[in-house]
Amino acid sequence: MDSQQKQKWKHKIHEVIYEADTPSGKLFDIILLVLIIFSIILVMLESIASIDEEYHQLLYVGEWVVTILFSVEYILRIISVKKPLKYVFSFFGIVDFLSTIPMYLSFVFVGSQALVTLRALRLLRVFRILKLARYLGASNHLKASLIASRVKIMVFLFAVMITSVIFGTIMYLVEGEANGFDNIPKSIYWCVVTLTTVGFGDIAPQTALGQLITTFIMILGYGIIAVPTGIVSAEYIRSGKQSDDEKKSLESNNYDQENDPTQHVTIHLNSQHCSNCHVSNHRDNADFCYNCGNQLHL
Amino acid sequence: MDSQQKQKWKHKIHEVIYEADTPSGKLFDIILLVLIIFSIILVMLESIASIDEEYHQLLYVGEWVVTILFSVEYILRIISVKKPLKYVFSFFGIVDFLSTIPMYLSFVFVGSQALVTLRALRLLRVFRILKLARYLGASNHLKASLIASRVKIMVFLFAVMITSVIFGTIMYLVEGEANGFDNIPKSIYWCVVTLTTVGFGDIAPQTALGQLITTFIMILGYGIIAVPTGIVSAEYIRSGKQSDDEKKSLESNNYDQENDPTQHVTIHLNSQHCSNCHVSNHRDNADFCYNCGNQLHL
Amino acid sequence: MDSQQKQKWKHKIHEVIYEADTPSGKLFDIILLVLIIFSIILVMLESIASIDEEYHQLLYVGEWVVTILFSVEYILRIISVKKPLKYVFSFFGIVDFLSTIPMYLSFVFVGSQALVTLRALRLLRVFRILKLARYLGASNHLKASLIASRVKIMVFLFAVMITSVIFGTIMYLVEGEANGFDNIPKSIYWCVVTLTTVGFGDIAPQTALGQLITTFIMILGYGIIAVPTGIVSAEYIRSGKQSDDEKKSLESNNYDQENDPTQHVTIHLNSQHCSNCHVSNHRDNADFCYNCGNQLHL
Amino acid sequence: MDSQQKQKWKHKIHEVIYEADTPSGKLFDIILLVLIIFSIILVMLESIASIDEEYHQLLYVGEWVVTILFSVEYILRIISVKKPLKYVFSFFGIVDFLSTIPMYLSFVFVGSQALVTLRALRLLRVFRILKLARYLGASNHLKASLIASRVKIMVFLFAVMITSVIFGTIMYLVEGEANGFDNIPKSIYWCVVTLTTVGFGDIAPQTALGQLITTFIMILGYGIIAVPTGIVSAEYIRSGKQSDDEKKSLESNNYDQENDPTQHVTIHLNSQHCSNCHVSNHRDNADFCYNCGNQLHL
Repeated sequence: MDSQQKQKWKHKIHEVIYEADTPSGKLFDIILLVLIIFSIILVMLESIASIDEEYHQLLYVGEWVVTILFSVEYILRIISVKKPLKYVFSFFGIVDFLSTIPMYLSFVFVGSQALVTLRALRLLRVFRILKLARYLGASNHLKASLIASRVKIMVFLFAVMITSVIFGTIMYLVEGEANGFDNIPKSIYWCVVTLTTVGFGDIAPQTALGQLITTFIMILGYGIIAVPTGIVSAEYIRSGKQSDDEKKSLESNNYDQENDPTQHVTIHLNSQHCSNCHVSNHRDNADFCYNCGNQLHL
Repeated sequence: MDSQQKQKWKHKIHEVIYEADTPSGKLFDIILLVLIIFSIILVMLESIASIDEEYHQLLYVGEWVVTILFSVEYILRIISVKKPLKYVFSFFGIVDFLSTIPMYLSFVFVGSQALVTLRALRLLRVFRILKLARYLGASNHLKASLIASRVKIMVFLFAVMITSVIFGTIMYLVEGEANGFDNIPKSIYWCVVTLTTVGFGDIAPQTALGQLITTFIMILGYGIIAVPTGIVSAEYIRSGKQSDDEKKSLESNNYDQENDPTQHVTIHLNSQHCSNCHVSNHRDNADFCYNCGNQLHL
Repeated sequence: MDSQQKQKWKHKIHEVIYEADTPSGKLFDIILLVLIIFSIILVMLESIASIDEEYHQLLYVGEWVVTILFSVEYILRIISVKKPLKYVFSFFGIVDFLSTIPMYLSFVFVGSQALVTLRALRLLRVFRILKLARYLGASNHLKASLIASRVKIMVFLFAVMITSVIFGTIMYLVEGEANGFDNIPKSIYWCVVTLTTVGFGDIAPQTALGQLITTFIMILGYGIIAVPTGIVSAEYIRSGKQSDDEKKSLESNNYDQENDPTQHVTIHLNSQHCSNCHVSNHRDNADFCYNCGNQLHL
Repeated sequence: MDSQQKQKWKHKIHEVIYEADTPSGKLFDIILLVLIIFSIILVMLESIASIDEEYHQLLYVGEWVVTILFSVEYILRIISVKKPLKYVFSFFGIVDFLSTIPMYLSFVFVGSQALVTLRALRLLRVFRILKLARYLGASNHLKASLIASRVKIMVFLFAVMITSVIFGTIMYLVEGEANGFDNIPKSIYWCVVTLTTVGFGDIAPQTALGQLITTFIMILGYGIIAVPTGIVSAEYIRSGKQSDDEKKSLESNNYDQENDPTQHVTIHLNSQHCSNCHVSNHRDNADFCYNCGNQLHL
């Protein structure tokens, strides 16, 4: 049947594009990565005046070739999934769209093609190939610790914000336009530059009072830098210790594992995506999606 | 009775202004926040010459409207509490005063209206609305750890100070006025800029000897930066571990909780302020202030 | 007897100068601190051309008054101890000498009086008054942890040194004199400026290759900065935990303390210095120096 | 026999050059270090125009003397080992080669002699003399912890890279060539300079929008700096704790150590290198290489 063959084709495409465990899927991902990096380099070279002058035609053609390939891939991605809208509005769906559109927009807005470096975000797919997803996804510790320290980080950012606004204004009053502190927003920008210890030096206090206040701001920034570092360190150590504890308790339970109701079983996951609901990380021996019950094509 | 009605009005105002749990109190706080942010943006825009030229009248009127609203709020705050002086000299009382006064002072001192960005400090009230007070206030760990590391931090600041004075003087002697090290205070300012790794570059050593000493100062600063970070990390981890321990001991006590003399009970606190002594974080079911015994108006 | 009276005088002077527990000793220390800060401010003001022009005579006289007072104090310190040489070659003995000598040297070498800011080191005496010595001196943990991490810190400094030498040379070859990398030592100085994230910007790479290498150096520096921070954090936490453990074991021993052979007793120390061997931190009820057996004058 | 005598000479040379435990070996290493530092200083001095002008001949001769000595040493190293190729392609073999070749190359390429500062890498041999190898080599904790955090560090570097590419492009579009953001690679370089808080200031945003984005980048960089610090701290603490635990369990096992099957024995290692397979850290009482069975010459 024609419809069935079409369905089969869709499955084939889905497997190649969305999965990284089959040889063809792996090959596809690697080609994709090479293309992404190649196209980013093209855009970079184009932005260098001397190179662009000489090789403009070549770079332009190369850029369009990649864009057309990406457009075809984008259309295939939409076709091969059962719920295209879900893909289109997913994180990678939006990234994929933003990676192709700037070239087409360059007919209308000159210079917009530089935005194709947004393709860099597509590089995040590398995690899927390198099977790093397991390292990242599995570490619920990290996620939990980030949620736990969310409030502290918010408070910290709030402190930086208020400090910058107040000292920015004071420095604007003390130094004034004559010394580069043209207006309050610029003063606040300078204050963040100082608090974060970046210190460009494009604006710098010239008056003695301004330098005194700056000294105070810098020592404050010195102290503030310790806070997020301390939080992250603490959370890392804590989450690490928990997993240590779990490992220990696992080891000590080794002898009575058979009677243990919360038995630990190693489950092998693969990178297969459900063609219906896009959930990934299915068990290797799964026949149906654990999320929506759609049949998986192994 | 007239006096009783007046009293009732005062209670009503107190509830709206000082509490964030009632719908009207919440609404009031949100309006306040919007007004604060709005007025800070006004001042910022006013400081930008090109914008000020075109919209001066509009910004001026907007600023006065906010100032008058804040003045009314300030007066209402004083009226609605039993001990006005306690409010006036409290942290927020002073902040509220400093937030309104610069506009009035601008009749006398030109430019003082820029100080209305001190209103940024009023944004600290946001914690009350977001119920963050609970997170912050309840964490006596943080407070305790800060007190514990107080001496260490003092010693650290002292070390930075003495190092800056000595190396500042040495650099003044080595580099001299010709290379921007005009005087010792400026040299000390440069030394703090270097020690904190800010490095504006407005002043930089030019002689070989000066650059050698600078190399030493920078590596020293690199080492010093580790100290406050280490202290904060250590205190965070320790305080976190204590609360973990408490949680653990709590869990292990679950079965004999009824016989536990130091039973842990979850207490729900609200943001209500006592109209007499300004203490907040009362229990939800409290009828009287736990601090002064004044009747609370639920 | 005359000799006995002289001895008594020496004791009296010793008590006032070297001890901070008696009222007269405390007063002496506070006057000393005020004088030190006063004299540092004098030197700073003198270095500011506009101020020096107007008040030169005043500053000059003030500086000499302080210097003479310090000279007298230095002589009294030598007289009042039994082993003057031990004091003269102790840390504070050298600091005290270096604090007075620059003024006298200024007759010979113009400008050397700026070195009197070495008096800042005398401020370290503040720890004695604030009784911080106990916090610092008693914490053998800190000392032990520093010794423990000594090798790691040496390795770290070594790594910074070798990295700077190699990348400094490479940048000298890549950028050359035309772009401010005049010679290898200056290049190495620039490399340390970059590795420590200070980044003055007085020298900055101009060529594309130079900027690429710089990117690499900066990310390296970013990684290196983590190392001393990590070491210090780890040592702080470890030493803190040890003291926690000790406290815990102390608490758990509370009930059988009477039978404990290593009983913990709280000992009150004072800031008294032995006039013979300069050891301080004697017990409050001590009559003789625990180090040399010399009689202490309470 | 001649061949046997030759063999004996080779052993003697091997002992002097490769080992640091015999007096002659130690002396050789110290002379080597002095020569390395001396030659690096020579190159530095040569790069300073004013010094080179006056002492060019002297520096040139000195440099050649060191180079010839190093060449002889390199040849002796090759002769005295049984498997020369293994040495030639080992880390130090390559370093030793790169340390001598630039001088010879300077006949062909002018300026290449500056690369002799690669000799700085030879300074890593200092660890052998100072017996630090034991501290570093023995600490498998550090190695294990680095391997454990390898994935995290890769993810971190990846995040820095993608962030720099995207924000670099955005800043190129926002600021443009007029403000120093000449092309995308330069913009990315600037972005890394900002993210790492180095902040040279040779390029700095001039437009209001550019400064707003920069503020965001800086706060991001502030947060990112916490990640590697946190990772390293956590790993240091964990590895430290493990060794603490081991020490504790060792102590608690003290009484039944004779029955302990996993008995801890202190083994004394020396710096002797096997002349066949180059493995070092043999036991003091070893007669044969633990790796290849080659007889060791004590």
